[in-house]
Amino acid sequence: MKEINIALLGFGTVGSGTAEALRRNREFIERQLGCSVHLKTVLVRHPEKYAQLELLQGVHVTADFQDVLKDPSIQIVIEVMGGIHPAKEYIYAALQRGINVVSANKDLVALYGPEIIQIALMNHVNFSCEASVGGGIPVLQPLHDSLAANRIDKIIGIVNGTTNYILTSMTDTGESYEAALAEAQAKGFAEADPTNDVCGYDAARKLAILTAIGFRANVTFDDVLVEGIEKIQQEDVTYARDMGYVIKLLAVALREENGVALNVYPAFVPKSHPLASVKGAYNAIYVVGNVVDDVMFYGQGAGSLPTASAVMGDVISTIKHIHNGSTGTGMILTDVRRIPFYSSLKLKDSYYFRLVVDDTTGVLASIARIFADNGISINEMVQKRRFEKFAELMLIVDTSPRESILRVEESLKLLPTVKSVANIIRVMSHEN
Amino acid sequence: MKEINIALLGFGTVGSGTAEALRRNREFIERQLGCSVHLKTVLVRHPEKYAQLELLQGVHVTADFQDVLKDPSIQIVIEVMGGIHPAKEYIYAALQRGINVVSANKDLVALYGPEIIQIALMNHVNFSCEASVGGGIPVLQPLHDSLAANRIDKIIGIVNGTTNYILTSMTDTGESYEAALAEAQAKGFAEADPTNDVCGYDAARKLAILTAIGFRANVTFDDVLVEGIEKIQQEDVTYARDMGYVIKLLAVALREENGVALNVYPAFVPKSHPLASVKGAYNAIYVVGNVVDDVMFYGQGAGSLPTASAVMGDVISTIKHIHNGSTGTGMILTDVRRIPFYSSLKLKDSYYFRLVVDDTTGVLASIARIFADNGISINEMVQKRRFEKFAELMLIVDTSPRESILRVEESLKLLPTVKSVANIIRVMSHEN
Repeated sequence: MKEINIALLGFGTVGSGTAEALRRNREFIERQLGCSVHLKTVLVRHPEKYAQLELLQGVHVTADFQDVLKDPSIQIVIEVMGGIHPAKEYIYAALQRGINVVSANKDLVALYGPEIIQIALMNHVNFSCEASVGGGIPVLQPLHDSLAANRIDKIIGIVNGTTNYILTSMTDTGESYEAALAEAQAKGFAEADPTNDVCGYDAARKLAILTAIGFRANVTFDDVLVEGIEKIQQEDVTYARDMGYVIKLLAVALREENGVALNVYPAFVPKSHPLASVKGAYNAIYVVGNVVDDVMFYGQGAGSLPTASAVMGDVISTIKHIHNGSTGTGMILTDVRRIPFYSSLKLKDSYYFRLVVDDTTGVLASIARIFADNGISINEMVQKRRFEKFAELMLIVDTSPRESILRVEESLKLLPTVKSVANIIRVMSHEN
Repeated sequence: MKEINIALLGFGTVGSGTAEALRRNREFIERQLGCSVHLKTVLVRHPEKYAQLELLQGVHVTADFQDVLKDPSIQIVIEVMGGIHPAKEYIYAALQRGINVVSANKDLVALYGPEIIQIALMNHVNFSCEASVGGGIPVLQPLHDSLAANRIDKIIGIVNGTTNYILTSMTDTGESYEAALAEAQAKGFAEADPTNDVCGYDAARKLAILTAIGFRANVTFDDVLVEGIEKIQQEDVTYARDMGYVIKLLAVALREENGVALNVYPAFVPKSHPLASVKGAYNAIYVVGNVVDDVMFYGQGAGSLPTASAVMGDVISTIKHIHNGSTGTGMILTDVRRIPFYSSLKLKDSYYFRLVVDDTTGVLASIARIFADNGISINEMVQKRRFEKFAELMLIVDTSPRESILRVEESLKLLPTVKSVANIIRVMSHEN
């Protein structure tokens, strides 16, 4: 029986999960492939720490990447180190040496995906990265293959488990943003420095990857406009719920007439929308194609074994390509043309405003005038709570271009009777 | 530029959708493939009816299958005729002549899938059938490829749009089963003879296909035990809702220690479960693997264009295989070993009972005794409505083997004080 030798770069959460997945299902995997699959080399910083590990018995554990690169028997490198350097250099070197690469590295793929795929193509090897978005959820492969007959027009993802966990806690328990974040940190769903997640950067990286594949376009992380959830307060969550919405951090790619708009932002999602029931650390990616209409992919967006499922799925596909002599074909991210961008300022959405205003006569009139002057219709207005001398005002306005919304925000801030513009959040329509 | 010639067998809902999908996205599809894709021949019973159809201008429309079979330029046959004969004969003949086949025919694949794939393998051509389950939802390909590192342990599908539409109507509007069915028929979601859908046969076919691919096993429609929704009444829907459940028709494949159990039945689904929010004619397939844990695929389970999306996705994959010279490899349904079956009588579930009983003293005691004698604990009992001399009794019992439940049913029917066992429905646990 033929043997495929694999090297694993990194042995953290995903790396150990990958080794465990292979151990657990080896017989089943090898029967499908008709060959044996051998984890030959693992690259880590401190090999001595792994000497006793049962999972790595018989595996060459090394700190020297040359042990991988110079081993002609290795046909697939799995990169699960994360970060840009030295992951990028290792991947480029492996591809250039004719070694197929599977990566779970969203940071890297979001920035250099289109470039990496070019190098893979030139070297007739595979590069795949299903695990870089949505943990174990099959979404990149289906977007690329099963939905290949569609012009994808819209992708809306809940692709960051940390923020979804925090927002779900705030919704279910009524706790504050700060308390929900602290709880997420205590339970390991958020890092000590949560910036990357709560400010939306992680979601933006995944959106760049989803868009590159779904829209067949050369887009990267830098093309995404990002707003996070750090301004969401319990008042917003409560008001959303009262109106039949839940707040979710959405990663949204839209195909507009003159280009593509890529945005990450929190939004009111109607409870009837399939994305509304995605709770806790789960992820989901909702996709609209011009033939299939709407489909959604759902599952655990992170975790050692779920992510390893995606990594090993890519490994199995790569082995099939090796057997067919077809590596370097049928790959995702193959179109490297830049795509025109549509200004997010022109995107039209309904919006929610929460304002803290003086509780005096005439205030409402002056606020209403600002909206009217900018051509924005107020759909609903509620005065919800009263502080000592202030009232809290919640408004939902009809679909309006973002540039008008930003102009209104500026004008409201200049009004002496407006103490603060506490929040402005998009409201997803029921037709989405 | 190379050209791939395609023939379409059948031009009904899915066939016309397929031609439309190709027309609509031709440029985009051909750019991906680097070749032109030509719908050369369409087989229909009455070619004269299509002479004026714009979509078929320049296409050879024929009633003679030999026009397809004897045309050496045709490399892919799309079978969207439905039914067993002559679809089966046409597919077998095409495969044996070395023509790749894409089929949307669930009736045929559910019965002959493993046999068809053997013929395809022997002739080194592709057979694919993504469209046979879940309309446009990518599920067979992801189950086969992206999740290939998993031992799939459970598949729970809402795979019949008609019954889901009826049950959703009954839940949302409070109408009777009969009224909801009539409405579904009026709106085209149910056929004049709804047996195939409401009795669960259509769901059973799709379950057989999902299991064959997900479990890598030779199972067919005949291996599925089927219960339909025809006994579900508004009382059951109301009671389910009051307890935090919705009733769904589920197609369930379970891997048990000594084999596989395949069942279609209506069940109480907890509102917190992702399957509970699948409404109307939508479908979803919830899958549990031993590495990925749980994932779900969601979308429109039928319809001309959504189903055509799946058909054309298969066509595009087949063309890639043709270009690679790798047709007949990497195909779904490749394992043709029979799999041991686990007796559904031994499956343990929680159950709901609705009984109509005499409204006299001592009745409850005699009923409770029957459950106790069969080792079944009653978890909850509600006496809900009173007729003239009868009471309606709803019970939820703890997890018990189906054989005990059936024994209890028999004993209850023999009790003179029990007027009728109106319904017995499984209750999905929150851990599912």
